[in-house]
Amino acid sequence: MAHNDDIAALRMDYRKAELLEKDADPNPIHQFRLWFDNAMMAEIPEPNAMCLSTVYGDKPDSRIVLLKAIKEEGFVFFTNYHSSKGIQIEANPNVALNIVWLELERQIRINGVISKISAEESDHYFYSRPLESQIGAIVSTQSERLSSREALEQAMADALEKYKTESPVRPAHWGGYIVKPVEIEFWQGRTSRLHDRLQYQLINGQWEIVRLYP
Amino acid sequence: MAHNDDIAALRMDYRKAELLEKDADPNPIHQFRLWFDNAMMAEIPEPNAMCLSTVYGDKPDSRIVLLKAIKEEGFVFFTNYHSSKGIQIEANPNVALNIVWLELERQIRINGVISKISAEESDHYFYSRPLESQIGAIVSTQSERLSSREALEQAMADALEKYKTESPVRPAHWGGYIVKPVEIEFWQGRTSRLHDRLQYQLINGQWEIVRLYP
Repeated sequence: MAHNDDIAALRMDYRKAELLEKDADPNPIHQFRLWFDNAMMAEIPEPNAMCLSTVYGDKPDSRIVLLKAIKEEGFVFFTNYHSSKGIQIEANPNVALNIVWLELERQIRINGVISKISAEESDHYFYSRPLESQIGAIVSTQSERLSSREALEQAMADALEKYKTESPVRPAHWGGYIVKPVEIEFWQGRTSRLHDRLQYQLINGQWEIVRLYP
Repeated sequence: MAHNDDIAALRMDYRKAELLEKDADPNPIHQFRLWFDNAMMAEIPEPNAMCLSTVYGDKPDSRIVLLKAIKEEGFVFFTNYHSSKGIQIEANPNVALNIVWLELERQIRINGVISKISAEESDHYFYSRPLESQIGAIVSTQSERLSSREALEQAMADALEKYKTESPVRPAHWGGYIVKPVEIEFWQGRTSRLHDRLQYQLINGQWEIVRLYP
């Protein structure tokens, strides 16, 4: 059992890289692509895992989603629109994304506004998924209470049988979202906690870069 | 450059473990300790990195913080109380934590209420840190704009000189917070996205466990 003294002593001194204004791309989406490519090259497991934060009432909620496309306008992921996050997004489209690559001592923080992508784009991705994932999406009423794992497994088995003879159709409530950023921070760990933090802010349609105290 | 087709194709089939009601500890803090120990044993880098979400106005914000103690009442981390997150917490103490161990195909989602720990406890941790980290905390006016990295390096150099002859004192605005949970979800990835999700909810002082659709 890990004692709190062990946990408190977990400490890394970040020395791998730096982030200077002169090296930062003026466009944060392009800077994101660069760091994302670095994460792919470093063979980090699931480099596209992001923490998505939403607000319901005056409370935050958060969960991991998987980045599926980087577009000039923003960041795309897929989910069930009827899930808890879908319901929260429907009521309040302000969201935050946090993506962290500990092996590279890097973190990216994104604040922005979310909206649905087109049905055509959702179709394109849905039908690119393995058959079992398509069926899984159809069978799961995401975030609702489930009586037992067996109930889900039975529903899955029934669906697998059904879809032996017909093709799954994307449910209208399953699809993509795009997060359009208004603020993006790139965080590079440095020694003695004097980390590099460059924050891009969208001001009158232009991205401005400021350095923040670590 | 990673193309969006490459990103969209990033896909893992989770097969490492399962989470069944019969194996879940009735107390979610104890269940958390168990999974945290597993993460320590697996030698995951920085197993104590958590995404902390806060709310300002009707917008979420998020960043990584480091878990420094697991107490029966909740989860402790340290920061600058004058940072952006400190200001947001002052106005709204509802927060969420998300901790993910991709190598174990596990995620823990915590929703709760945050408060400061005692000055004594903050002292205890502050003085356990390496001298340079103590000085770093004194020198950095966290989240504020910084004119250049050189300005911070100069301030750090001046402080290192100063503290050759005197000991640093914990600034009153640097200390710990504890997040007391009201809801904790344990998420274990499973094949075909039929993941195990057990959610603990604090109801009239008792923890109740429900299974959620994945």
